[in-house]
Amino acid sequence: MSRLLPFLLTLLVSGYASGECLTRGTGDMGVVVERAAGSLKVVDTSAHEVLFRVPGLGDLSHASVVYSRDGRYAYVFGRDGGLSKIDILCGTIVKRIVQGGNSIGGAISQDGTLIAVSNYEPGGVKIFSSDDLSLIADIPATPTTDREGKPKQAKTVGLVDAPGQRFVVSLYDTGESWIIDMRIPGQPAIQRFTHIGSLPYDALITPDGRYYIAGLFGEDGLSLLDLWHPEKGPRMILRDYGRGDEKLPVYKMPHLEGWAIAGERAFLPAVGRNQILVVHRGDWQETGRVAVHGQPVFVMARPDGRQIWVNFAFPNNDVVQVIDSETLNIVKSITTGKGTLHMEFSPRGEEVWISVRDRDEVQVYDTESFELTHRIPADKPSGIFFTARAHQTGL
Amino acid sequence: MSRLLPFLLTLLVSGYASGECLTRGTGDMGVVVERAAGSLKVVDTSAHEVLFRVPGLGDLSHASVVYSRDGRYAYVFGRDGGLSKIDILCGTIVKRIVQGGNSIGGAISQDGTLIAVSNYEPGGVKIFSSDDLSLIADIPATPTTDREGKPKQAKTVGLVDAPGQRFVVSLYDTGESWIIDMRIPGQPAIQRFTHIGSLPYDALITPDGRYYIAGLFGEDGLSLLDLWHPEKGPRMILRDYGRGDEKLPVYKMPHLEGWAIAGERAFLPAVGRNQILVVHRGDWQETGRVAVHGQPVFVMARPDGRQIWVNFAFPNNDVVQVIDSETLNIVKSITTGKGTLHMEFSPRGEEVWISVRDRDEVQVYDTESFELTHRIPADKPSGIFFTARAHQTGL
Repeated sequence: MSRLLPFLLTLLVSGYASGECLTRGTGDMGVVVERAAGSLKVVDTSAHEVLFRVPGLGDLSHASVVYSRDGRYAYVFGRDGGLSKIDILCGTIVKRIVQGGNSIGGAISQDGTLIAVSNYEPGGVKIFSSDDLSLIADIPATPTTDREGKPKQAKTVGLVDAPGQRFVVSLYDTGESWIIDMRIPGQPAIQRFTHIGSLPYDALITPDGRYYIAGLFGEDGLSLLDLWHPEKGPRMILRDYGRGDEKLPVYKMPHLEGWAIAGERAFLPAVGRNQILVVHRGDWQETGRVAVHGQPVFVMARPDGRQIWVNFAFPNNDVVQVIDSETLNIVKSITTGKGTLHMEFSPRGEEVWISVRDRDEVQVYDTESFELTHRIPADKPSGIFFTARAHQTGL
Repeated sequence: MSRLLPFLLTLLVSGYASGECLTRGTGDMGVVVERAAGSLKVVDTSAHEVLFRVPGLGDLSHASVVYSRDGRYAYVFGRDGGLSKIDILCGTIVKRIVQGGNSIGGAISQDGTLIAVSNYEPGGVKIFSSDDLSLIADIPATPTTDREGKPKQAKTVGLVDAPGQRFVVSLYDTGESWIIDMRIPGQPAIQRFTHIGSLPYDALITPDGRYYIAGLFGEDGLSLLDLWHPEKGPRMILRDYGRGDEKLPVYKMPHLEGWAIAGERAFLPAVGRNQILVVHRGDWQETGRVAVHGQPVFVMARPDGRQIWVNFAFPNNDVVQVIDSETLNIVKSITTGKGTLHMEFSPRGEEVWISVRDRDEVQVYDTESFELTHRIPADKPSGIFFTARAHQTGL
């Protein structure tokens, strides 16, 4: 059958449906980012169908998405500083603003009322009402200078939400991490930690919201901040983690958000090496390494922690591998196709959705049998985000 | 203001709304069981409002609820063997059957297609289609005899869902645990473990879906089954856990589902004692005890694991206590009112909803400030179940 036909059918369905809104549960819905077209596909994860296509979202070449607490609204953070609020029940853009010059990520507050965006240009964090995207707080980053000596603000990276109506963010140029307490919305209370390490480029928060861990571009090691004890300040862990003295060629810095936590083990993408690091959570010491197919990008645990799924940087981005979290054996290698960019598990883990850019499709696999069960057409898909994220800290 | 007024307003709103269905996200919805009236209140956890009242659900004196994967349908398991499918967007009963004589709990399969119910009378497990509640499998329990020597089936208890499209259940009279594999729906594959311990009365599964733990009425200790390694069979843990030689008066056997897992610690309600047991998860050894206000019933971790909330059996069921999971200090005691029966956290933990039967209300607390922020009228409320459960194993 022609590859075009399902795509045309999808367009027809979208055209029909976008005139009215759906009355249905949102728990089994999600969005797929179409990076080149600047659009989203709204999907039904039970029927494995596309419900809507939402165009007009600007530059989505490095986009991320968070959800309102009711699961109805997806907030899309675009590379061009665009922030869009999408109604996934109606397939419409509720509101779209361009809030900065170059944004790289965002987060939604614990109570769902605030959207925070971190910006490269002009630097700093802006915080908006999740209701109407009106500006609540504009937090400039630390002043610094660029290569030509001109004044600028530090780039903000690794922005996450944390319990207690807080956000945590790092400053690339100045090596800081900030805790932004938004309990009084108009009055951000900021706790600044300086000298956390050289050039933090991304960060993650553990699923329980306790540990904030920033990756460093300027030196080996990671900066760990215990949010239960911010008074202790950040400390360095995994002093060997990074590019090392050899300064290996790094095809793509791995996403820290993609770290997998499974039981007492954390699985980390090595930087510049075809390896996964295994780390004990209690003391953050490395306990082993797993040799894999390429330089890992996302290292994700199936929700039950039994399997670790890994995708890879160019030129090895056509394969996904599955590691048994107990034996550390690779139990499966799947050739998905060139440009395998992202993975998302169904909330209870029976399926994984994988975006394969160069095949213009999302592939759905049964995680027990590793069988390819569905193909969903999408135009150069990248990030996949399901509504269950609405209920999880840091996602 | 009269206590009756909000209740009447609620009835009016319900009456108005039940004629039509709502187009809205389901991620911030839930139900409150009204145990005496045999009805449910459908609630909005963002607005703190009642959306619908759904009567006609039979005996809900010991009811539990699971959700479809889209979050739209609540399946209610009643004491009288009733199984009801409720559309929470419309406030209507989609279908109701009486499937057994005396049921005590149920579960929904990992993929959301199957509903399993465990029965005291006649014993056994029935499995239904989540779509139309048609019978898919009827699994009789082991034959045994009652006190008068008449033949009967063993009571089934502690039914949970597990990854891999499985259910796990225990048999009270015969001391067994069964793994029911439903990958081929019409052909349940059952793995039976006998001699797990004397009179299992309830069970839990850890949030990652790995460990199934049954509480025993007939002896001290708990039976633990590692579902990653069923070939190893169940083993006894916590040999001191139970009523002990003194055979303390037990006002209410604690709910095992209410165990809290926080980091590497598990918090268990002691049986017959005013204590919480602290257990290390790795080796399941007891590491400490916390003295509390009464005999604990539910011991629940805030989603970030920082706090443990506890309610108590009669005659101390008018208080809730909060334990700091790190210091093990009691950081707060709240007098909620007589008949404090259940608690449910908002998915990211900023709020907890507490049902207070004798005050005919659900109280909502801010978990940081411990402030009472909302009161929601409900007729003798007991269980509270939010839709985020749709995405969690064992809930």
